[in-house]
Parts: sequence; structure tokens; C-alpha cells
Amino acid sequence: MSSPAEYAPTPRTVPTRSRERAAYDAETVHAILDDGYLCHMGFIADGLPVVLPTLYARVGSTLYLHGSTGSRPLRTASGDGLPVCVTATRVDGLVLARSGMHHSINYRSVVAHGTAYRVQDPEERRLALDALVDTVVPGRSADCRPASAKESAQTAILRLDLAEVSAKIRSGGVNEDPEDADLPHWAGVVPITTVVGDPVPDPGMPAGAPLPDYLRRFTGA
Amino acid sequence: MSSPAEYAPTPRTVPTRSRERAAYDAETVHAILDDGYLCHMGFIADGLPVVLPTLYARVGSTLYLHGSTGSRPLRTASGDGLPVCVTATRVDGLVLARSGMHHSINYRSVVAHGTAYRVQDPEERRLALDALVDTVVPGRSADCRPASAKESAQTAILRLDLAEVSAKIRSGGVNEDPEDADLPHWAGVVPITTVVGDPVPDPGMPAGAPLPDYLRRFTGA
Repeated sequence: MSSPAEYAPTPRTVPTRSRERAAYDAETVHAILDDGYLCHMGFIADGLPVVLPTLYARVGSTLYLHGSTGSRPLRTASGDGLPVCVTATRVDGLVLARSGMHHSINYRSVVAHGTAYRVQDPEERRLALDALVDTVVPGRSADCRPASAKESAQTAILRLDLAEVSAKIRSGGVNEDPEDADLPHWAGVVPITTVVGDPVPDPGMPAGAPLPDYLRRFTGA
Repeated sequence: MSSPAEYAPTPRTVPTRSRERAAYDAETVHAILDDGYLCHMGFIADGLPVVLPTLYARVGSTLYLHGSTGSRPLRTASGDGLPVCVTATRVDGLVLARSGMHHSINYRSVVAHGTAYRVQDPEERRLALDALVDTVVPGRSADCRPASAKESAQTAILRLDLAEVSAKIRSGGVNEDPEDADLPHWAGVVPITTVVGDPVPDPGMPAGAPLPDYLRRFTGA
């Protein structure tokens, strides 16, 4: 599915406050999604909301979501589809203002609304599984045993076409009321980053086995 | 509200798969919650799920959630309460198995179901706002100007009493099918950590102003 240059805003994707933080262009939305692999997927079960952490991969304007075959709501997605809200958030910093009120978080988030469907086509499932693995560690899918037909059947993959989607970004420094500028409290931003550590080989790995190139690039080791 | 030693499992909090990863003791649940400040809160709006990133603070067996006063669902919470699912997830590592199927994530998550209510009592609101600030940076609430009555009224705080709640933890190394043990693929765990960077003072701060103790402890600077 080809990507639009911009996702059309809808009543649900226009925030009631801080509208200047919202973005709808595909470049921004996709960049935030591509900077991670874990989202929180919300759906309704027995009339009540459920939110589960879920791995995802973006392929063009489609999100593939990794699910358990066991849960009832995901079985629903096999038929009429499952209404979901998928939200991915990265924290970039803690904004400490002189006033408690103006404390904030620098973050980038994407919220996507839509109906998710179970992916049934074997070839699309294979591509989605590879994309899920490569989203976590780029290049990894080529360096593992592919799923057997039986393994593939045990994994539910949902497909959500991105259409009603928006990004929200808060960045930069402290926004303070002018009359608070001279208060004696420390003010500024504490950066937050996610760090990839040195890979710890499985005990069954041959001693001294070199790291594959893609993993050296990924970890900076 | 005092904490139970263990939260009672319910049909919703017993997973359909990987039950050995679930935990219900308050110590485990609270420790995961206390190791962060951002959750994803799901609720239903117009019959469809919505998931928003939200700051939270735990006080005993209560979660306080920071919301915008503008949004309609949060206004609902002023009256009959808002059914929510609050999920907080920390990623600890990427588990690369020799088979694609056994790739996994080391993580700790908490899922809490319940009805959230708007906090109206001024004293409870004040304590909750302080807790929200101190959950992000311990000790910070004492080093900023407290919210005025007007500011406080602009901030919606929801209260969710923890009752139907569970933790889920995946840790350790690769779980591999024995017949895959000799495959030539790199296998192991890539640790993921969240790192607090050096604080960047607001341009309005006096040159050479020292970091407050609580911030030096927090950032390790």
C-alpha cells in the first residue's frame, strides 16, 4: 500500500489542546513509528477497554501487529475485524519548569485509529513476520531460521492500514510564565535516551564467535 | 489506601498464554510501576477504543493519572467514572533466538483495569500533583512553585484504585527448540536501558548555578 504525503485530520485526531504539537504528514508519523518497535494496542473486550503492549512493524502505510492467537479479541479480528487504537510513544526528555504547572515531557507519539484484521495470506504473513523481526534489529530476519508453517500458524498477525493517524511532538525547552522567570528553582531539560547495550551471547554460542555485521552496526559494539 | 500483599487474579488478569510470566503480588506490581512515570491509558469514546500516553504516580494502591481537562472522556470521569485500562511497560532487552519464532523481548509490564474518577478534593489534588512531579524526578516537587488554584483547576487528575491488576515479566536468555541449538545464527540478548542524560539548564538560569542535590542524585551528574 503506497503512503500518502499527509494523513487527513479527523475529529478524533485533532487534539483539544496544544494543537500546535500535532502533525499529520506521513514523514513525521512514519519516522516516529520507525524509531521503535513496541506500541500499546487498545481494543474493547466485553464492553471494557484493554491495552496491551505489542510489537509492530510498519510497511508503507500498513502496521503489522504481533498478537497471541489465544486471546478472544484477536480471534474476533479473524472475522469482521477488531476496532483498535494503536499508540507508540518515545520519551526524549523531562522538562523541569520553575512552576509545577509547566513541568512537561518532551516526547514523540503516534496514535492510529482503525480496524485491524488478521493476516491470513501465507506470503503476507511471512513478509510481516520478517518485518517484525527486522523492526527490532535491522537485518536480523536474514540471520535466523524462518518460521515453519506450524509456528507461523501459532502466531497471530494483525494488519492495520494507517488512515486515521496523527503524531504529537513536544520538544525544546521550558515554557514558563514570565512572572516566574526569576524564581530561584532550577529549570531546564533532562535528556532521556534509550541505549542499546553490549550483546550477551547465549551460553551455547561458540566461544569467540564474532558479532554479525548487522548486530555490530545496531549495537555500536 | 493501604496495599494488599497480593492482588486477586481475575479472568481478565490471567493470561491465556505464558501464565508463568504473570505475577499478582503487590511488591512486584508496585516495583514495575515505580520504575517509570509514563503509562498508556485506554478508554472508550463513542464506542471505540482510545489509547493515550499519560503520566502517572502510584501512592499506595492508588494510581493518579494526569489528564487534560479538555477531552470529553475525561469529563465523563467527573460523574459516573471512566472505565479504563492502564498499562505500563519497560523494555529490558531484545532476545535473539536462532529461530525467528523464539525471538522475544525481555520486559516488565503492569496492566490495571478499573474505573477512574476525577479527583475533586483540593488536598488530594495537591498531593497527587506533587506525586506526579516526584514520580518523574524524586524530590522535585519541593523545588518548584506549587500550582495556584487556577492552575490546579486546569489540570484533570484521575484516580484509579488498584484492584484488578497484574504484572507480566519476561527475563533471562534465549528459549530455543533443542533441534535448533546447532544452527549457525548468532543467539543471545541485547540489553536495553533508559539513560538519564546531563541536565541542560534553561538559558534564564544564572551562569554556574549548581545542580540541586536531588537532581544530582537523579542524573548521576
